[in-house]
Amino acid sequence: MKIIHILFHFTVFSFTVSYASINDFCVADLKAPNTPSGYACKPLASVTSDDFSFHGLVAANTNNSFKIGVATATVTNFPALNGLGISALRIDLDQDGLAPMHTHPDATELLSVVKGEITAGFLTPTSFYSKVLKSGDVFVFPQGMLHFAVNSGKGKATAFGAFSSENPTTHILDVLLFGNKLPSGLVSQTTLLDLAQVKKLKAKFGGSW
Amino acid sequence: MKIIHILFHFTVFSFTVSYASINDFCVADLKAPNTPSGYACKPLASVTSDDFSFHGLVAANTNNSFKIGVATATVTNFPALNGLGISALRIDLDQDGLAPMHTHPDATELLSVVKGEITAGFLTPTSFYSKVLKSGDVFVFPQGMLHFAVNSGKGKATAFGAFSSENPTTHILDVLLFGNKLPSGLVSQTTLLDLAQVKKLKAKFGGSW
Amino acid sequence: MKIIHILFHFTVFSFTVSYASINDFCVADLKAPNTPSGYACKPLASVTSDDFSFHGLVAANTNNSFKIGVATATVTNFPALNGLGISALRIDLDQDGLAPMHTHPDATELLSVVKGEITAGFLTPTSFYSKVLKSGDVFVFPQGMLHFAVNSGKGKATAFGAFSSENPTTHILDVLLFGNKLPSGLVSQTTLLDLAQVKKLKAKFGGSW
Amino acid sequence: MKIIHILFHFTVFSFTVSYASINDFCVADLKAPNTPSGYACKPLASVTSDDFSFHGLVAANTNNSFKIGVATATVTNFPALNGLGISALRIDLDQDGLAPMHTHPDATELLSVVKGEITAGFLTPTSFYSKVLKSGDVFVFPQGMLHFAVNSGKGKATAFGAFSSENPTTHILDVLLFGNKLPSGLVSQTTLLDLAQVKKLKAKFGGSW
Amino acid sequence: MKIIHILFHFTVFSFTVSYASINDFCVADLKAPNTPSGYACKPLASVTSDDFSFHGLVAANTNNSFKIGVATATVTNFPALNGLGISALRIDLDQDGLAPMHTHPDATELLSVVKGEITAGFLTPTSFYSKVLKSGDVFVFPQGMLHFAVNSGKGKATAFGAFSSENPTTHILDVLLFGNKLPSGLVSQTTLLDLAQVKKLKAKFGGSW
Amino acid sequence: MKIIHILFHFTVFSFTVSYASINDFCVADLKAPNTPSGYACKPLASVTSDDFSFHGLVAANTNNSFKIGVATATVTNFPALNGLGISALRIDLDQDGLAPMHTHPDATELLSVVKGEITAGFLTPTSFYSKVLKSGDVFVFPQGMLHFAVNSGKGKATAFGAFSSENPTTHILDVLLFGNKLPSGLVSQTTLLDLAQVKKLKAKFGGSW
Repeated sequence: MKIIHILFHFTVFSFTVSYASINDFCVADLKAPNTPSGYACKPLASVTSDDFSFHGLVAANTNNSFKIGVATATVTNFPALNGLGISALRIDLDQDGLAPMHTHPDATELLSVVKGEITAGFLTPTSFYSKVLKSGDVFVFPQGMLHFAVNSGKGKATAFGAFSSENPTTHILDVLLFGNKLPSGLVSQTTLLDLAQVKKLKAKFGGSW
Repeated sequence: MKIIHILFHFTVFSFTVSYASINDFCVADLKAPNTPSGYACKPLASVTSDDFSFHGLVAANTNNSFKIGVATATVTNFPALNGLGISALRIDLDQDGLAPMHTHPDATELLSVVKGEITAGFLTPTSFYSKVLKSGDVFVFPQGMLHFAVNSGKGKATAFGAFSSENPTTHILDVLLFGNKLPSGLVSQTTLLDLAQVKKLKAKFGGSW
Repeated sequence: MKIIHILFHFTVFSFTVSYASINDFCVADLKAPNTPSGYACKPLASVTSDDFSFHGLVAANTNNSFKIGVATATVTNFPALNGLGISALRIDLDQDGLAPMHTHPDATELLSVVKGEITAGFLTPTSFYSKVLKSGDVFVFPQGMLHFAVNSGKGKATAFGAFSSENPTTHILDVLLFGNKLPSGLVSQTTLLDLAQVKKLKAKFGGSW
Repeated sequence: MKIIHILFHFTVFSFTVSYASINDFCVADLKAPNTPSGYACKPLASVTSDDFSFHGLVAANTNNSFKIGVATATVTNFPALNGLGISALRIDLDQDGLAPMHTHPDATELLSVVKGEITAGFLTPTSFYSKVLKSGDVFVFPQGMLHFAVNSGKGKATAFGAFSSENPTTHILDVLLFGNKLPSGLVSQTTLLDLAQVKKLKAKFGGSW
Repeated sequence: MKIIHILFHFTVFSFTVSYASINDFCVADLKAPNTPSGYACKPLASVTSDDFSFHGLVAANTNNSFKIGVATATVTNFPALNGLGISALRIDLDQDGLAPMHTHPDATELLSVVKGEITAGFLTPTSFYSKVLKSGDVFVFPQGMLHFAVNSGKGKATAFGAFSSENPTTHILDVLLFGNKLPSGLVSQTTLLDLAQVKKLKAKFGGSW
Repeated sequence: MKIIHILFHFTVFSFTVSYASINDFCVADLKAPNTPSGYACKPLASVTSDDFSFHGLVAANTNNSFKIGVATATVTNFPALNGLGISALRIDLDQDGLAPMHTHPDATELLSVVKGEITAGFLTPTSFYSKVLKSGDVFVFPQGMLHFAVNSGKGKATAFGAFSSENPTTHILDVLLFGNKLPSGLVSQTTLLDLAQVKKLKAKFGGSW
């Protein structure tokens, strides 16, 4: 008699009925609603090896005003990350490209430079912390900090990174302030920016005023 | 060409597809079942400014035997709090009013007195901690502690407070012991209260015996 | 007028509408999908005393090659544990019985010996920790550690235990390595086990090669 | 050349310098102060197999008015539990023995009856949940609930249990209310117990009045 | 013989040695270093009732350019909050006063208006959410969101609030961007603000350039 | 009068005394003991920009029997990660190189291939999940799963990765089983490996027998 037959009973009667092992991971069913802890799990029976890999963390198009390409693998396009508290990104910066001031309200970001030179930094109420990074250097932006990254070298720059959340959001300061219908007067009043400055950037970022 | 057009691509292709930004908050769909982390999120498209405000944290009716009015803003009436781990309350005490001994099994409570005088305290196995509070004073009842608050001054008293949970429950000792069908004999046996005392309070709090 | 009438208003108007108290516990609705924080809660109205008790943490059948009987009370058979982060087990070992090398990737395990003698231990990259346990002794296997338990005495042995998760899984090393279709060559290559050894155990544990 | 020499470099230069592996576990240094997450870790070099076992989860003395013996293995006497979120207990009840009404503000409790008959239950604002338990039955008291356990059978009863915290506290209702110097009048006022009842129990539990 | 004598043994031998009960709360020893979970706990023997109350959540001085007074009770001035995940604030706004754009990277904020009229709101990548609040209204700013509050009524306004952290920080946008030595050119480059605008505000907020 | 002077008061009297802002991050003081939540924080006054960058996430030496080079940036060599729940790694595999079967008991791992071809997979009690990865592909190994990675292409392969813990450990199966003094007989008994196989690998990995 093979051990597997015995083990089968051992397994079924005690630990690992099919539902029980699902919490080793919880591949998201993105069609279900989200919850504060993430999406509902796809049934284990329909999980395959394909669920655990993502394709496309490659150089994204940099043909935009910031000359930046950003590719991300987060729960919304890589559902296996659901509940695991981590996601990946790749950024590519053309010469003079940059990631403008932004925050990730719900995630720390790690950035590992693999090509070129990037100056990265973040701001606090009492100081700022920044470094010129080259290939092999890693920088950390703690959760919620206002931060930036600038290609400060010659030629292109590339970095791989990770977030401490499977579902991070990116709040670009200009988009927050100038990309919606918050009245220009109110923006000016609460930022102390000149009204003309606010209107100028609202025109650029599509906000009405 | 406006930057917003470029940003649009930047945004859509990388970070902020509509579902991705939902986890900045997760307004509860109260018709969905609860989970250990809270309710499912209402779709982002149907979230409005109204979701983030609550109306009615005002003086509640004190026409009861404890002469206390309690108003709360928790996830069940303020669904935007879902997953955020905080909620609000206001208590009003008439002269001689009080909050009887109770616990919040799942939340620490902060109480900020704004009017009158309140004596608040909590009990531990080895001691008790209590203070006479006046306007501008704050008291903290750590999670799960048996505690009370008494209007110890002249006239009315008011306090604003907060819980470290969006969905706190309140366990009033008298209601736990005397408001249900747990046999009086068993209550007496497990509390050492006299049987007559148990029956007297069961009569008051609606428990059968 | 009875206080209960007044309290009724106090209660209804402020704290404890029926949904609010559901988060004192969240009995699983096992037919609903799981989420990273657990199952959806069964409606409070249908929760009864029976939900909070489990029957059957008794000596399980040891008629298998490891001479071990394992009984568990976890969320999948004891739904009240949902969200509470704890579950129970009982193991019975015949003479010469053992729990083979395994991990619980998501739970610490506590084991309290009540009968016989059990040698238990776990392995780390730099050492191993093991003890001979008798009745009254407790051993802890920290989360994710590869561990074992062997009946090292005369006669039967019994232990009660607990996991720091309501939904632990058990990864038996032999089942992981030899119970599936991972090619024998790849198993050999990544474990340095001889190919013949791999094939021998694949035959025992039902893996194909 | 042996692989171990190569591995040594692999190990030292990459993952597992000695400090790195300490977070597989964190045996408490009980002489250091506690923090909200637990005690500081004992240095890895001084950790031995003895740290992971506890001796003495045996029948405790029941020669007291409640006829109960309680033995616990928690972080304060079993420092390896530090940070692991679990601890163990054993209770023994003589005939007519009982665990009086109490709460564990910071832990869910699982109780597995191994001998005799125990009636266990907990109280909520709207109901109570209780069961008569026999050998092989498990009951769960969710965190912070007021609960009790009574030997409801003939002869002695024994149960093994676990807490979902390595450092649970026990708040016996009578000790909270009657074991300290909180004025009897205030106890009476906030519990609605008769003053005479309060004084009678203060005399029993050592509170002054 | 009094029960208290028996209980003493019960207590000492099982649950509540002095250190064990300290984790009902953990009053900070602010002279000790912080950790990711908070400060080390003050010894239980030196904890008194005074530790659990704070004095001074009163109208703060509004004699500043924003015409705002802010008083807070957080772990640094109210050490009992250590590890409890909550803190309190009071804001007072003179007519035309405001809280400029800012974030709390590590806390959700609840704001309960008790006097006057306040317009509060927060910004997201795709929208903004704001409301005009009057006495009895509560608004929630989810963690990490850029937000503001403006006295939009006649006369003074007052609100009480709470944070979902005992140690929140406040990142005022102008202070982050213009209050330090980050070169004006870099600020301009990463925000798209005109260089003149940057320099103008650097002059106001004390940043060098 | 400059706003900064006013802000200074605003700041000092309310939110951001120096200690308060320290919890935006908590750079580890590695000389202090660890705790379950991480190391004590270095004083804010001694934190500099250098703390937030790490140098050396470069190709590590592959001159070992597994032909693998692993570089990591974790809290022990990059103290700014303390409390942030994330760390970085780079692996380089020569042709025929591999990462042998191992687990990270306390971290999920994300792996982004940037060069060559890597076959990665993990094992569960009921299945295994694996994929052939090329540049631009990402794979996720959920926490605690036994997993491997093999250079399955021609030439070298490189991948960047991240862990969902700042202090992950790596448990190489061969090192656990064969690199210590656990008696060969016991290893054989609890793994079902032949005794000769155990002794052969003990000789390779340095374990005594």
